[in-house]
Amino acid sequence: MNQEASKERPGSAVRLTVAAVENGAVETRCDDLTTEEPMEIRVIAGPKELCHRIAVTMRTPGHDFELAAGFLLAEGVIRDRRAIRSISYCTDPGEPQHYNIVNVRLAPGVPFDASRLSRNVFTASSCGICGKNALEQVQALCAEPPVGAFRLPADYWLALPDLLRRAQSLFARTGGLHATALFDTEGCLLLLREDIGRHNAFDKLNGSLLLAGRLPASETVAVVSGRASFELVQKALIAGIPALASVGAPSSLAADLARAHGMTLIGFLRESRFNIYCGTERVEV
Amino acid sequence: MNQEASKERPGSAVRLTVAAVENGAVETRCDDLTTEEPMEIRVIAGPKELCHRIAVTMRTPGHDFELAAGFLLAEGVIRDRRAIRSISYCTDPGEPQHYNIVNVRLAPGVPFDASRLSRNVFTASSCGICGKNALEQVQALCAEPPVGAFRLPADYWLALPDLLRRAQSLFARTGGLHATALFDTEGCLLLLREDIGRHNAFDKLNGSLLLAGRLPASETVAVVSGRASFELVQKALIAGIPALASVGAPSSLAADLARAHGMTLIGFLRESRFNIYCGTERVEV
Repeated sequence: MNQEASKERPGSAVRLTVAAVENGAVETRCDDLTTEEPMEIRVIAGPKELCHRIAVTMRTPGHDFELAAGFLLAEGVIRDRRAIRSISYCTDPGEPQHYNIVNVRLAPGVPFDASRLSRNVFTASSCGICGKNALEQVQALCAEPPVGAFRLPADYWLALPDLLRRAQSLFARTGGLHATALFDTEGCLLLLREDIGRHNAFDKLNGSLLLAGRLPASETVAVVSGRASFELVQKALIAGIPALASVGAPSSLAADLARAHGMTLIGFLRESRFNIYCGTERVEV
Repeated sequence: MNQEASKERPGSAVRLTVAAVENGAVETRCDDLTTEEPMEIRVIAGPKELCHRIAVTMRTPGHDFELAAGFLLAEGVIRDRRAIRSISYCTDPGEPQHYNIVNVRLAPGVPFDASRLSRNVFTASSCGICGKNALEQVQALCAEPPVGAFRLPADYWLALPDLLRRAQSLFARTGGLHATALFDTEGCLLLLREDIGRHNAFDKLNGSLLLAGRLPASETVAVVSGRASFELVQKALIAGIPALASVGAPSSLAADLARAHGMTLIGFLRESRFNIYCGTERVEV
């Protein structure tokens, strides 16, 4: 029975009894919390089919295979879906299935070089030679400028926050989720992914696009519910998305990277205003 | 001259010209963006003084040595300041100083086992044996329950968001920073650290406490500006902080971990209300 129970997939929210304090009074009530669980991503590659543990990420369960695919895309391990032979949950012998380990088996002949991973890399050597390009690696994956010759009016952009909020179902329940959404140039929602981690939400979106053979995602606009960091701009660029709009603030490096790659970066996107940090040619004002 | 320029320490904000769109009009103005730059953390350890690249984290410059110390504390590499012989910026031969590489030299005799790092670990072995405790490792560092026998009235907690906001100077300028603050049981601010990454802000706080020999931080309350994830609860526990209050939502695993360790976890902390997820004995209502 226990083993059966442990085979259940975790949900995206958990109900909990909490003590709510307001105006000096305490009330016991139910609250939905966003589920957060570790997920280990493993790559099985090479003629000997060796299994490599790549990373453990704290994520909200759901779209786990997309998350694994999007993560490996961002790390430069894969570039398209043909690089993947299969994706599956993994159970070590004698352990219950927790849906927290995902195996990505690469297609025959796909090269896999552990030392090229931008993060999660561990090397031991003398100091003088080990740092040659650690920092440069972070930028290495988004070499090609995104394609997107559209030019959209202010009203298009101003409508996005509301469209995002209405599409974000789980957030309303838990108040604890980041979202990444992809819109076409008509303002139609193409895809939405949510996660407790902002990077995960974008990786899930990218993984979905990759697995469906929809990369590069030219002629689209990505919207993120929080702030725009360097890594989110990088993920948008890797997917070929030419415009990123964030409800919150961008970072300095996010703006630098977006500008260097001809991308449009919008921040502080509200229903009445927004800032354009670069790529103004895609905004009609 | 160029080399001189590159030796300048990066600031915590960067001024940029942006196009602000409001009511159909465009205005060019200046905007301060939170600085985001990669920082590589290296550990130099063992009789041969080998240099190990541990991680690259995207951070807001400032308190970099604290960040490195706090990160290594969270990873279980060090437990107190005596484990550290020195911390310094590192420059590879022939490269300009970017203040983006930090070397932590461990004291003689301090054991360093690369394979015990909870994240950033890379191993290659057959699938059946490699996953024995990858997920369990995440929990392994916070074995001891925090000490904190205090019991504070609702007004104490309700005052924290405003105290945090007033202390958060850089946020006001850029709107793009996470903060972690530590208060004593009188409501006095002991320490505040800001960063574009929520984990970094907490690592800086912990690193500061560690370097000052102030760990464990019993009889204190930590407040975070965003949401409370598993890792933030873990960092609080590692520092021996018995209560964590977050302005945003906690995750399911954050609540699980806090409860398992006898910690008080408060979420949705506003000026008029908050939720207690566990450890109600420290709140007087």
